[in-house]
Amino acid sequence: MSILVVGSVAFDSIETPSGKRTKILGGAATHFALAASYFTDVRVIGVVGEDFTAEHEAVFEKRGIDTEGIERADGLTFHWTGEYSGSLNEAKTLGTDLNVFATFAPKIPEQYKDSEYLFLANIDPVLQLQVRQQMPDVKLVCGDTMNYWIADHRANLDKVLAVLDVLLINDGEARMISGEHNPVKAAEKVMALGPKSLVVKHGEYGATGYFSERAFGGKASRPFRAPALPLGEVVDPTGAGDSFAGGFYGYIASQPELTPAVFKTAMFYGGVMGSFAVERFGTDRLASVTSEEINERFELFREISHLEDALAGA
Amino acid sequence: MSILVVGSVAFDSIETPSGKRTKILGGAATHFALAASYFTDVRVIGVVGEDFTAEHEAVFEKRGIDTEGIERADGLTFHWTGEYSGSLNEAKTLGTDLNVFATFAPKIPEQYKDSEYLFLANIDPVLQLQVRQQMPDVKLVCGDTMNYWIADHRANLDKVLAVLDVLLINDGEARMISGEHNPVKAAEKVMALGPKSLVVKHGEYGATGYFSERAFGGKASRPFRAPALPLGEVVDPTGAGDSFAGGFYGYIASQPELTPAVFKTAMFYGGVMGSFAVERFGTDRLASVTSEEINERFELFREISHLEDALAGA
Repeated sequence: MSILVVGSVAFDSIETPSGKRTKILGGAATHFALAASYFTDVRVIGVVGEDFTAEHEAVFEKRGIDTEGIERADGLTFHWTGEYSGSLNEAKTLGTDLNVFATFAPKIPEQYKDSEYLFLANIDPVLQLQVRQQMPDVKLVCGDTMNYWIADHRANLDKVLAVLDVLLINDGEARMISGEHNPVKAAEKVMALGPKSLVVKHGEYGATGYFSERAFGGKASRPFRAPALPLGEVVDPTGAGDSFAGGFYGYIASQPELTPAVFKTAMFYGGVMGSFAVERFGTDRLASVTSEEINERFELFREISHLEDALAGA
Repeated sequence: MSILVVGSVAFDSIETPSGKRTKILGGAATHFALAASYFTDVRVIGVVGEDFTAEHEAVFEKRGIDTEGIERADGLTFHWTGEYSGSLNEAKTLGTDLNVFATFAPKIPEQYKDSEYLFLANIDPVLQLQVRQQMPDVKLVCGDTMNYWIADHRANLDKVLAVLDVLLINDGEARMISGEHNPVKAAEKVMALGPKSLVVKHGEYGATGYFSERAFGGKASRPFRAPALPLGEVVDPTGAGDSFAGGFYGYIASQPELTPAVFKTAMFYGGVMGSFAVERFGTDRLASVTSEEINERFELFREISHLEDALAGA
């Protein structure tokens, strides 16, 4: 099944304790599309400028990602500059040059309209809603957001939350949206705004899935915890969350039906793709991983989190 | 098999968003012993004052915990006063009255010397070492510590680390001991100081087990991640770590041999006992839980973290 993703295709200038890169390919839609491309067909809606070359295009093409929906505009591509210090937990944004993204109005090509899975990557909720409205018949809508939109564009964001099946956010975003410290109460409040289910990402600690009664007809009422891989080195955390989303949603789109078992397995594949993404700068690792490596790492995620067999209890 | 635990038996005065309690039974050895008592025989080495009454004694007796090793000294019992604010992640210590603990010199009763499992709960490393030296023939030694000893008593603590089989600490303590941000590198550095294996607790995110080549003859080289239960209400986090330790080590002592499978299952039981401990103030919940409830919750921990079956991959 095809996924349609709308989001940023960008250049990133990044400094981490492992080194520095200037204007390398990045953006939420880029990381998402690369990660999802190992599971299903992906089509991208976005905008780039004149500095986006055939070399950048080739990164998508090599993974069979459809880039017909990426508009070429006059001017420069969206450019993010940031750095990470010792703990690598949070990026410090040094610059956000929206460039061609400032006037972007997404238009869905006719041949994309049969996409069954829609992913609204982290962009202005106004644009997320415009895309959602042009795709009224999709089977499943999943979305992401960030602190900036929660703090200053809440009314628009609420309109997006109302039309989502699945929302992917992190702990801090769940607390911001809900105003709740307690993670279970926060999840309930967030789902009450629209999403039938919710994946809260905990960085190095994995992710928790929460299911409202509207998900799976109430059949999956317990939360679910998926691990992250303890990594001895993180080269560049940029795009880890988008890669998680790509692995998660790509796996879902590859399956005939979204069941609780598929959702949980998808959370493991999200962690798997996130763990690859951070091994090198930018898209380097996600553009070159193999399906065999993905499946090996999936088995590793299972090994580090599953008990071998039931032993006698208390 | 019997566990011998040395640590604080104390009174706690605690304020949390759920309420306030004054001078209720607490202490690391108390929480540990109650949690472990559901799995195996437990003997306690500690000291209390004249304010420790038959009513407090009865909490141990009802769980069949051997308190012969708890010395009755003139003066008052160790008293900790603390409070938790909104996020409940960290206690703010308002008072630490060592009282009879200030001059405590642990002496192991003769009838305790056949204990096969030793747990050195969080106390002065000098005392931990004194106990360890009086128990030269134990099968397994597991210990805990805290930021205070790491920061200001490092030389003494290092002597304890050198004689431990298993160390249980939290993320912050692992970073402090190792001077490393990266969790995998931190674990390696900590184990190089002595412990063959290490359990790093992540609070609401569960725990990670790390194994050196000296553990299990190198048969368990991968880290292992055990979940915590997402809880809608945490009444009192005091003693959660000690209760984790009690469930973890109690389960280990109940098994004929410490294998990688036993270690991993023990981490799940640690999480189970920690999840009960925080449901009410002080020892209330741990003193009254049933083996049936423990086994039900163990199954819940499995359910929220295990995939139902292997599905097709990337």
